[in-house]
Amino acid sequence: MEFLVRSENRLPPETPVERREELRAAERARAMELRQAGVLKRLWRVPGRNATIGLYEAADPAALHDALVSLPMAPWLDVHVEALAQHPQER
Amino acid sequence: MEFLVRSENRLPPETPVERREELRAAERARAMELRQAGVLKRLWRVPGRNATIGLYEAADPAALHDALVSLPMAPWLDVHVEALAQHPQER
Amino acid sequence: MEFLVRSENRLPPETPVERREELRAAERARAMELRQAGVLKRLWRVPGRNATIGLYEAADPAALHDALVSLPMAPWLDVHVEALAQHPQER
Amino acid sequence: MEFLVRSENRLPPETPVERREELRAAERARAMELRQAGVLKRLWRVPGRNATIGLYEAADPAALHDALVSLPMAPWLDVHVEALAQHPQER
Amino acid sequence: MEFLVRSENRLPPETPVERREELRAAERARAMELRQAGVLKRLWRVPGRNATIGLYEAADPAALHDALVSLPMAPWLDVHVEALAQHPQER
Amino acid sequence: MEFLVRSENRLPPETPVERREELRAAERARAMELRQAGVLKRLWRVPGRNATIGLYEAADPAALHDALVSLPMAPWLDVHVEALAQHPQER
Amino acid sequence: MEFLVRSENRLPPETPVERREELRAAERARAMELRQAGVLKRLWRVPGRNATIGLYEAADPAALHDALVSLPMAPWLDVHVEALAQHPQER
Amino acid sequence: MEFLVRSENRLPPETPVERREELRAAERARAMELRQAGVLKRLWRVPGRNATIGLYEAADPAALHDALVSLPMAPWLDVHVEALAQHPQER
Amino acid sequence: MEFLVRSENRLPPETPVERREELRAAERARAMELRQAGVLKRLWRVPGRNATIGLYEAADPAALHDALVSLPMAPWLDVHVEALAQHPQER
Amino acid sequence: MEFLVRSENRLPPETPVERREELRAAERARAMELRQAGVLKRLWRVPGRNATIGLYEAADPAALHDALVSLPMAPWLDVHVEALAQHPQER
Repeated sequence: MEFLVRSENRLPPETPVERREELRAAERARAMELRQAGVLKRLWRVPGRNATIGLYEAADPAALHDALVSLPMAPWLDVHVEALAQHPQER
Repeated sequence: MEFLVRSENRLPPETPVERREELRAAERARAMELRQAGVLKRLWRVPGRNATIGLYEAADPAALHDALVSLPMAPWLDVHVEALAQHPQER
Repeated sequence: MEFLVRSENRLPPETPVERREELRAAERARAMELRQAGVLKRLWRVPGRNATIGLYEAADPAALHDALVSLPMAPWLDVHVEALAQHPQER
Repeated sequence: MEFLVRSENRLPPETPVERREELRAAERARAMELRQAGVLKRLWRVPGRNATIGLYEAADPAALHDALVSLPMAPWLDVHVEALAQHPQER
Repeated sequence: MEFLVRSENRLPPETPVERREELRAAERARAMELRQAGVLKRLWRVPGRNATIGLYEAADPAALHDALVSLPMAPWLDVHVEALAQHPQER
Repeated sequence: MEFLVRSENRLPPETPVERREELRAAERARAMELRQAGVLKRLWRVPGRNATIGLYEAADPAALHDALVSLPMAPWLDVHVEALAQHPQER
Repeated sequence: MEFLVRSENRLPPETPVERREELRAAERARAMELRQAGVLKRLWRVPGRNATIGLYEAADPAALHDALVSLPMAPWLDVHVEALAQHPQER
Repeated sequence: MEFLVRSENRLPPETPVERREELRAAERARAMELRQAGVLKRLWRVPGRNATIGLYEAADPAALHDALVSLPMAPWLDVHVEALAQHPQER
Repeated sequence: MEFLVRSENRLPPETPVERREELRAAERARAMELRQAGVLKRLWRVPGRNATIGLYEAADPAALHDALVSLPMAPWLDVHVEALAQHPQER
Repeated sequence: MEFLVRSENRLPPETPVERREELRAAERARAMELRQAGVLKRLWRVPGRNATIGLYEAADPAALHDALVSLPMAPWLDVHVEALAQHPQER
């Protein structure tokens, strides 16, 4: 099933540059793994914000939760998930 | 998977009593079928309101949607669904 | 550019069945045209609601607006549009 | 009587891992006691968040309050309680 | 147990005066019965609004719900209930 | 005149236990004085939260303000006051 | 004591012009009486809206309520009242 | 001074086509007059909605109010005005 | 023109007493200057909060902004400004 | 295409004056560059707040995002972007 995932990054602006870069690189790497596993299907930036909107696919909400908390930035992310129902037009 | 379903009934107060009773009886009958099918697991009233909170189980959000719109009151219900993730303590 | 479009259908529940069905059929037909034109890329139902979330692509917000108001249900839709920025991971 | 309890965990992401693990283990142990006492009946994770939704049973709101503040994480939890009324269908 | 009950009266302003007066008189009479039964303990007006705040006592949320829907104005009331926990200072 | 006072305690969870206990004891003592002076008439806990709802009586909003800021916890309280109008049923 | 009163006029746009003018004239006349009685001290328009912000003075919230419901437009007004406390700078 | 004006058009979808067209034409004509008078400086559509965002210039909020209620659609518009302060970069 | 100014003081409760008193004294002095200049016309306390509501007069929003940021507490104030339109009754 | 950009500056009030001035000067310089590039078309202050409203033009949301994060204050800005559709009156 598919989920719409809105994620605001609350990493404090005072975080040292190296720490921030290290986290970003690790985040990117893990996101790539989730893409290859078919869990992360699309990702957009919310213009002007340190935030993303993603389209995910997972077996159920618990599997999605595990994928999301596997992201290195997870402790600083404020995440809202919306379960999407298949539309009859797409059956 | 389980869902928390909050449902406000917006049937206008001016609805004739017979129409209202007819809808309520049909609603109750359909709800009983959903209980027997294991889709509706628990139902509570929100005290003071013409509203309920329900715990539902369905294969996915589309199956839940079909169950909810099968309720005779559906055209007047303002429904909010929250997908629940199994908690590790309950595995 | 891509847009996330949230659309609540406010067609009154008292609308006669034939009128409703006529509008739905016309809506479906126009949506199919928008899909074929590459404007409507994905569509989901919000479970439990007479509402959808769609992923659209259009040259600019004015072109998107024209596409959305071309839907026969448009006068009853409460629509919120979010412009999406391409994420560097998808470049 | 039953209560729906929504709980956001605001433990700062900067909390040292050992402190966090210690709190989590104590939380789990206390939650298990509340389950065995019949106070905590169901618990779900809100997908993507460090948050839970629980179904509790207690003699009254004061007894529920005492149970909730007995959790070791309580000082960091942002809790919202909703009193549930028994639905006639479940009498 | 005690409850704080906020109630907005949505009776349409176009309601004929006699119907409104009839409902008000019946409301007052039923409220008086609830006072005598110890269910309605205090009642205030929200200044400037057709709304009240009440302090109620009932065995549980279902009993409170039954009391509130027994009011003749109930179909037009938008009610929000908050369960109150006894404060240790008042034990 | 009477006021409904909602008060969220924002004392940081990291506050040392002795400081917290000292403040709580002083708070209790001052609250008792306000009760004896007829200013604090009822007090409830919001279940699950470090928050209270109180029924106060004071000559006017300025007198209420003075009473509320005389509480030792005042610098950490997020307070919302609602002026209540006497209901004709209670005249 | 003084109150800040925000008032949105919900008279339907379909109201016949004569009815609307009749109500406006009566409203103006009653407002003038409230000014002369020292109850209505200042009145502003919220630019762009059929709404006002007023500064009122009354003995207590019940007296303010009586003044506000004495306005001929009262059944269509959505009113929010805020009790103001005298500032020490103005003592 | 300049104002940002957000305007939602609440004309009911059931309004007859001729009435709607008549109102739209009159609205357009009056808007053009406001442009020529230098009151309406820019106008945008909110994509997907029957709503606009406008940049207006007027001597003061009362003059802006008069301009806005001179629009034939005004009775159906839900308008929010924000007063803008000149930025030092534009002095 | 006149403005309604709502101002929440977010100075942290941990601020040393002398610093706080120093800021308050400077604030009072500057407020008095603004009163004498006819900019600050009325000031009220929001009961129970470290917050005020003020009625200001200034040539335009930029002049109001300059007056507000001239207050020594300005860096800690969360300010919301509403431009008021003269009401025809006060012309 | 044009965008309306609302930006709240969350730089902590405790930031040392030199750091703040340095950031402001760099911000101003970068804003001037964006003006010269035709990206920043208008800028206003929200009166009473450390906040701005800007009218931007960019090829698409990603280009706007790049412009906004190029501002030296970006890590402390809470930004909300609204995509604007050209109005037929301005074609």
